[in-house]
Amino acid sequence: MPSSGTILLNCDMGESFGVWTLGQDEAVMPFIDQANLACGFHAGDPLSIQCSVALAVEHGVRIGAHPAYPDLVGFGRRHLSCSPAEVQALVLYQIGALDAFCRAAGTEVAYVKPHGALYNDLVSDDALLKAVLEACAAYRSGLPLMVLAQIDNRRERKLAEALGVPLLFEAFADRAYQADGHLLSRRLPGAVHHDSQRILSQALAIARGQSFPDCHGNRLHLKADSLCVHGDNPEALEVLRRLRLALDGRPA
Amino acid sequence: MPSSGTILLNCDMGESFGVWTLGQDEAVMPFIDQANLACGFHAGDPLSIQCSVALAVEHGVRIGAHPAYPDLVGFGRRHLSCSPAEVQALVLYQIGALDAFCRAAGTEVAYVKPHGALYNDLVSDDALLKAVLEACAAYRSGLPLMVLAQIDNRRERKLAEALGVPLLFEAFADRAYQADGHLLSRRLPGAVHHDSQRILSQALAIARGQSFPDCHGNRLHLKADSLCVHGDNPEALEVLRRLRLALDGRPA
Amino acid sequence: MPSSGTILLNCDMGESFGVWTLGQDEAVMPFIDQANLACGFHAGDPLSIQCSVALAVEHGVRIGAHPAYPDLVGFGRRHLSCSPAEVQALVLYQIGALDAFCRAAGTEVAYVKPHGALYNDLVSDDALLKAVLEACAAYRSGLPLMVLAQIDNRRERKLAEALGVPLLFEAFADRAYQADGHLLSRRLPGAVHHDSQRILSQALAIARGQSFPDCHGNRLHLKADSLCVHGDNPEALEVLRRLRLALDGRPA
Amino acid sequence: MPSSGTILLNCDMGESFGVWTLGQDEAVMPFIDQANLACGFHAGDPLSIQCSVALAVEHGVRIGAHPAYPDLVGFGRRHLSCSPAEVQALVLYQIGALDAFCRAAGTEVAYVKPHGALYNDLVSDDALLKAVLEACAAYRSGLPLMVLAQIDNRRERKLAEALGVPLLFEAFADRAYQADGHLLSRRLPGAVHHDSQRILSQALAIARGQSFPDCHGNRLHLKADSLCVHGDNPEALEVLRRLRLALDGRPA
Repeated sequence: MPSSGTILLNCDMGESFGVWTLGQDEAVMPFIDQANLACGFHAGDPLSIQCSVALAVEHGVRIGAHPAYPDLVGFGRRHLSCSPAEVQALVLYQIGALDAFCRAAGTEVAYVKPHGALYNDLVSDDALLKAVLEACAAYRSGLPLMVLAQIDNRRERKLAEALGVPLLFEAFADRAYQADGHLLSRRLPGAVHHDSQRILSQALAIARGQSFPDCHGNRLHLKADSLCVHGDNPEALEVLRRLRLALDGRPA
Repeated sequence: MPSSGTILLNCDMGESFGVWTLGQDEAVMPFIDQANLACGFHAGDPLSIQCSVALAVEHGVRIGAHPAYPDLVGFGRRHLSCSPAEVQALVLYQIGALDAFCRAAGTEVAYVKPHGALYNDLVSDDALLKAVLEACAAYRSGLPLMVLAQIDNRRERKLAEALGVPLLFEAFADRAYQADGHLLSRRLPGAVHHDSQRILSQALAIARGQSFPDCHGNRLHLKADSLCVHGDNPEALEVLRRLRLALDGRPA
Repeated sequence: MPSSGTILLNCDMGESFGVWTLGQDEAVMPFIDQANLACGFHAGDPLSIQCSVALAVEHGVRIGAHPAYPDLVGFGRRHLSCSPAEVQALVLYQIGALDAFCRAAGTEVAYVKPHGALYNDLVSDDALLKAVLEACAAYRSGLPLMVLAQIDNRRERKLAEALGVPLLFEAFADRAYQADGHLLSRRLPGAVHHDSQRILSQALAIARGQSFPDCHGNRLHLKADSLCVHGDNPEALEVLRRLRLALDGRPA
Repeated sequence: MPSSGTILLNCDMGESFGVWTLGQDEAVMPFIDQANLACGFHAGDPLSIQCSVALAVEHGVRIGAHPAYPDLVGFGRRHLSCSPAEVQALVLYQIGALDAFCRAAGTEVAYVKPHGALYNDLVSDDALLKAVLEACAAYRSGLPLMVLAQIDNRRERKLAEALGVPLLFEAFADRAYQADGHLLSRRLPGAVHHDSQRILSQALAIARGQSFPDCHGNRLHLKADSLCVHGDNPEALEVLRRLRLALDGRPA
């Protein structure tokens, strides 16, 4: 998957919970390659997870586990100071829970992409990154971990190689980047692009291996296997549709 | 396993949660064959589940999933009016979560034994029993379900056969039985035996395929593959030790 | 309040949770007299509860506690077999939690209306009804409990009087009734009216003390202090607007 | 209370949850003045909270709310990056929930002492401290907040005065202190005293307004209104008994 030369589109999905719905998974699923499915700790209950898996399978979309800190109220966006051992265990728990539905549907969890605060913590905390890598390796040999594509991913590569875990590098079409390839914090103005032309253009630049402007206007070049897209409003859906077309129609 | 001729000893374990400990799993594990491990819905958190799995593996004890209604406060002992679809999904979720730790430890979930109110509900509710059987079948072909051994288990056999799910029949050494092989409700006096001689004698009768007195003093004959034992007090541990000795030393 | 002669309009509100929103509380609040606010067990988190209280206070709407069984995934709609002592304690807990925000906003919980499965259980279970009444009496002398208006409410009156708890009787504009004044189960066809003319007409009949057709077409007469309305879709909002106008404009 | 000249003894209590018990509240209660009761977010369920309140009332012990981050698995000991608004709301929620049982028992929450990670976060985070003070002020005028007694408490005094919240300063008998009066982190060796003679001697020094050795052996002088004691093992109980005797028998 990483070396295919064609960038994949991934989307965070399955983020409903009980009576509460979120996102428009049915509209988005036809356009993406990888669905990152909530596993019950920040969103998703057993029945909704089963529906999400069925929807992904119906569209031939690969299923990724999207494990999070246990925090429904905060939607997994709040840092929780877990020990590495706790993180390794809670990631393993969530992968297994999701995979039960995948197995029942004749498929399997194809990769792991941590959610929210846990995803962000991996960018700077070696012990937590190692804990998540261990969970991947322990669950299934060869199960890839998806991490943030940065200017320099040697840290991630080194830790992952030591445990034999393949990496998938992910870039964002609608987020502003710092010079080192870190995301600009959501708390800062301009962190999220709302101009669909800009989103599309950043997405295509990343997909084609070209540079694009960072938050200071300097050129940034990221190497990514997968592009995270959102589909939670009509505009986002339109971007997604055009992006899919552009990716499928581009010269090899 | 069911047809081995030798009865197995199973115990509900892994019922700690966070800082709170319950049971004496380390003392009990050496004496049993099957550990029914809580999966996080009535007890057990990711880290404690991982420890429980490690302890079972260390002692060569088979691991069973012990899924429950989502009810930590009530320890899964309160009936929750879930739909069959909800039950099927929450059982699948819990099997998968536990199995993640089993896989990481080089083993796998060997059977499923529902916990508390869910276990009891299966005795009388066909739709729920079918839902749990479907979860077993969907998770892994041949994964057995453990149910209450009664005078007449045709109902369970018929539903299980239709889905190709093997059954394990379980009897209790320290519970009083009604004439039909149902357990006397815990709310009634005399529901639980506290006399260790009586517990041992009922256990051995069941293990040897002999009859024993029901709650009315009439002879009851149950055919069981596994005997549920408890080890949550010093006395219970002593019964367990003597039972193990008696089972291992008996003539074939 | 019960004897004012003018029927009040109440609505279940504050049923968002974390990132998940539900209902259109801001649009509905101007039209109602009583807001039944979720207390965190079936919906509502501390921050959202605080916002709901502020909204009610802003519109001069009385705040009722809307306690439920602890069941976020099932939205409090699933029966949980709690003991009366457990129910009394969980209702007390939820009243107090909500009242903290009321006190901070210069008001207080004005009444208690159990939610979902708990509300329904009170119709047939004396021990649970007594437990909820005890919670009301224990929390504050004179705190009223809202219960289902039926043909015959002597049972409720008797239990409430013994504990000195005032009752508020509630009727439904958009639900079909059985002959005895019990609601037709939501699982049956025709349980919920979707025709806005019918909803309005049933509401006005109840408000004016007139009879209306039950699910068999026979005339039913209910005496109610408050009318439960819903505002969770544009149509419902329109009914609510017209109902408010009709109530306010009617001859005394 | 703060200016009485006699130091009070407080203890964290009510930390059971469902079937899981923790602490030996019944043995400890006769010896203390203030019981900090868990409110359901790190420990305590409605029924156990009610029992804890009854026990405190029976012994004439003042009841403090012991609110925590929502983290049952981590027992409220893990930092959760909540916003100040979230903290203010979750503290208010927990005070109210506990106070419902106090009201029902004819008393009221006498003070607030945050638990675990939240308690520790207040030592260094002004915004969170302000949020907790606001919750106290909003709940009831004059409701005191208990905070860590340090060499210099001007920061706490200033923020508390601005909101009109009385402070109670707390010292620890069994914890090692840094030179500035901060507690030595539990992760460091020697953070907790286990020698009962040392615990007793540190307690009496603090109670009598005398200095005692900090973790470097230098003299430390803390001014405290209340002394936190633990009673979770037979040894601790013995210390508590002797401390009570010494306090009650000392010259005025």
